[in-house]
Amino acid sequence: MMTKERGQLIVFSGPSGVGKGTILAKYMEGRRDICYSVSATTRSPRPGEVDGTHYFFWTKEKFEEMIAAGQMLEYAQYNGNYYGTPRQFVEEKLAAGMNVVLEIEVQGAAKVRAACPEGLFIFVLPPSFEVLRSRLTDRGTEDAATVQKRLDAALGELRQAASYDYVIVNDDLDRAVEALAAVVRADRCSVKFQKNLIEEVLEHA
Amino acid sequence: MMTKERGQLIVFSGPSGVGKGTILAKYMEGRRDICYSVSATTRSPRPGEVDGTHYFFWTKEKFEEMIAAGQMLEYAQYNGNYYGTPRQFVEEKLAAGMNVVLEIEVQGAAKVRAACPEGLFIFVLPPSFEVLRSRLTDRGTEDAATVQKRLDAALGELRQAASYDYVIVNDDLDRAVEALAAVVRADRCSVKFQKNLIEEVLEHA
Repeated sequence: MMTKERGQLIVFSGPSGVGKGTILAKYMEGRRDICYSVSATTRSPRPGEVDGTHYFFWTKEKFEEMIAAGQMLEYAQYNGNYYGTPRQFVEEKLAAGMNVVLEIEVQGAAKVRAACPEGLFIFVLPPSFEVLRSRLTDRGTEDAATVQKRLDAALGELRQAASYDYVIVNDDLDRAVEALAAVVRADRCSVKFQKNLIEEVLEHA
Repeated sequence: MMTKERGQLIVFSGPSGVGKGTILAKYMEGRRDICYSVSATTRSPRPGEVDGTHYFFWTKEKFEEMIAAGQMLEYAQYNGNYYGTPRQFVEEKLAAGMNVVLEIEVQGAAKVRAACPEGLFIFVLPPSFEVLRSRLTDRGTEDAATVQKRLDAALGELRQAASYDYVIVNDDLDRAVEALAAVVRADRCSVKFQKNLIEEVLEHA
């Protein structure tokens, strides 16, 4: 009798504006075998935000205890608040056979890689930098200085793309979703996940 | 303007009787972007065999010249004849953007890995050794000693399965074909193939 197959940890990165959220939402539509990681934060909940659903809302003391206890897969500080990925939530879902998606930036991803080298690291690339510039400008929700700040950050992210396992180009949403599905399916067949099965076949030979 | 995308070299191995040929035939049905590598041999053509289609039929001298010139991706001797994979045929198809399939055993695959580390190495695993035994026995075309010889060889092949990139279990033909399609599609997104694209995006940032 085989033990329940462990889920896959899927780390999904890419510059702001590249369309990560849209690709993931479409891919996850109707799937019950995959969920988002719930992040923890020390910032206050906004109206409508539910603890354990949108975020785990922790005190600064609790967050720092969790860091000290090695319970954070990755974390960072923005505007004086901590944000991070609690290890336990991810571990429980993976153990239950769920795939877990972390949509995080490249520094966080590097930390997750160190903690979980068996994870699946995917970077979403724009078809060109110009396309990214247009998307961020066309949103029209931010002033020129903010757009430039995002583009500078995007450049920093893009320079780390080659450290990921897979790179998906978002030139067409359907093709990008298809590529993501293939990468997740293929990862299941990667030798790192199949070693037990090979052992099993050999044991009964 | 981008240069034509190079094809993928797909190395497909697995024990005799595991169903490699059936999976490949179904996967390749109707696809025009993939072809089998044509092997070279020094054995005589059988009735109906066409030079350059079924095999390249070479003299022993020519085969040994090709080995000496580094023109064989891999080769071996069986029953006094050489068999092997000419590099040029594979190179030409890959350069033309075709995917090329090598259906070869594990020693040959190891040599191809050394020559073409960017290849896609896939091993087909039976759901159990018992299933493999049944399949080989049920064929009814070979005596018990021959079946046993194949099973011994299968064991040797299975022991090398973990050195491949991907392992596909042939428990169900459709699922195995689906897995193969996902692995080939995903390989295209693997970072080894996308580095140029990342460079391109960065160059125009």
